[in-house]
Amino acid sequence: MKRILLVVAYEGTKYSGWQIQPNALTVEQVLNEELSKLLNEHIEVIGASRTDAGVHAMGNVCVFDSETRIPAEKICYALNRSLPEDVVIQESREVPKNFHPRKCDCTKTYEYKIWNADFVQPFNRKYTYFVYHELNAEKMQEAAQALVGTHDFTSFCSIHATVPDHVRTIYSCDVIREDHLITIRIKGNGFLYNMVRIIAGSLIKVGLGEKDTDFIEEALGKLNREAAGPTAPALGLTLVKIQYPEEILTIDNNSDEEK
Amino acid sequence: MKRILLVVAYEGTKYSGWQIQPNALTVEQVLNEELSKLLNEHIEVIGASRTDAGVHAMGNVCVFDSETRIPAEKICYALNRSLPEDVVIQESREVPKNFHPRKCDCTKTYEYKIWNADFVQPFNRKYTYFVYHELNAEKMQEAAQALVGTHDFTSFCSIHATVPDHVRTIYSCDVIREDHLITIRIKGNGFLYNMVRIIAGSLIKVGLGEKDTDFIEEALGKLNREAAGPTAPALGLTLVKIQYPEEILTIDNNSDEEK
Repeated sequence: MKRILLVVAYEGTKYSGWQIQPNALTVEQVLNEELSKLLNEHIEVIGASRTDAGVHAMGNVCVFDSETRIPAEKICYALNRSLPEDVVIQESREVPKNFHPRKCDCTKTYEYKIWNADFVQPFNRKYTYFVYHELNAEKMQEAAQALVGTHDFTSFCSIHATVPDHVRTIYSCDVIREDHLITIRIKGNGFLYNMVRIIAGSLIKVGLGEKDTDFIEEALGKLNREAAGPTAPALGLTLVKIQYPEEILTIDNNSDEEK
Repeated sequence: MKRILLVVAYEGTKYSGWQIQPNALTVEQVLNEELSKLLNEHIEVIGASRTDAGVHAMGNVCVFDSETRIPAEKICYALNRSLPEDVVIQESREVPKNFHPRKCDCTKTYEYKIWNADFVQPFNRKYTYFVYHELNAEKMQEAAQALVGTHDFTSFCSIHATVPDHVRTIYSCDVIREDHLITIRIKGNGFLYNMVRIIAGSLIKVGLGEKDTDFIEEALGKLNREAAGPTAPALGLTLVKIQYPEEILTIDNNSDEEK
């Protein structure tokens, strides 16, 4: 038995998110079905990030256990042949048997993309949130700096969240404009339910001039979801990558405990 | 009667190109049908560039004549409400009655995009040509410089082309790598049938190391389609913009001839 890690990219448009649920198509279900067929075993993946309906990923992570004799690093090629074209495995590798993608320290990077122009762009309409009124990206960048550091993010967490601890650390949050495209790039040790989308919705309020640049800092202090802005639509959000310390992914071939 | 210009963006994936043809969905047909419904007149657009099946556009141009009393610059908003989501008008304006989008000097900019990685990216799979083997973008850039200037591009023109004159002027051709994405950006006064795709296919041969950096210069000199590389797939190609001199687009309100 070995534990295999997959790096999974997907266009979330037609999926009801990552997590398996009745009567809806999810990325987890597609992976379980195709892996079970490919390896001729019953496979259930454990995902790192249960992205919401319509959210995209360039590098979500999951693991599964298998008796297969196919070399771990070849599984991505075999699996990509049977997956739908909007789900593509970017990497497969063997990891220690005790590695759990939700129970380790990691750094997650998300991007929220906004198309700020007079008209929608047909190319990126599925990956960007279209905002017609002009946004001031400099003010958004200024406001976003209040997020950096370790804070209680209750104001930026859906009221439907179930985790009790709302303290997270944000390493950086940058708002970059390239012509009509505004990218909010945020890196942290973890994110609460809807957190990046509420941050994006709040920064948009600042960009529109409806709120001042101290809006984010004030909202953080109030520990109340109503103090922050609205939840921006899912289609603008992409989970870019999840980075784990390399040592916890590496198999120690000299250790019996890994066998 | 006034002549109205549209700047048209489209994702070409599901269209059999621009030009109307029997038993196939084309961008021209969609525009004629929706404009005729909107303006309650029989409308036939004249396109600037008859892009091929699967080719995309951020800024193709067309004109049509109409008796409408809707202000020209409002037509884009009204038309976008009825167009499919993969065709979006970016601008509408009145132009002189004698302006013809194929019979004026203009500068056209195309981009050919290549995704050069181990795996396809689900986000841009419809807009980039996937190349697995590593491409040397610096060598492609070096080779591409032979295209700049005024040349007979017979070697880079489909044998199915019907125009007799194969002389065109290329103002610039640059090959830019950003991580896994390679963009060939080319600007010229006109392009022959399949010309950008043959240039892309030839530069890819150089990037793979199958041809030296003087391949493009040598192929140009031979005036023979067989001397150049293959035609790269349509999905990587985007017509970025068509620029006309502003004076030929501007209506002289003091002149009776325009009335």
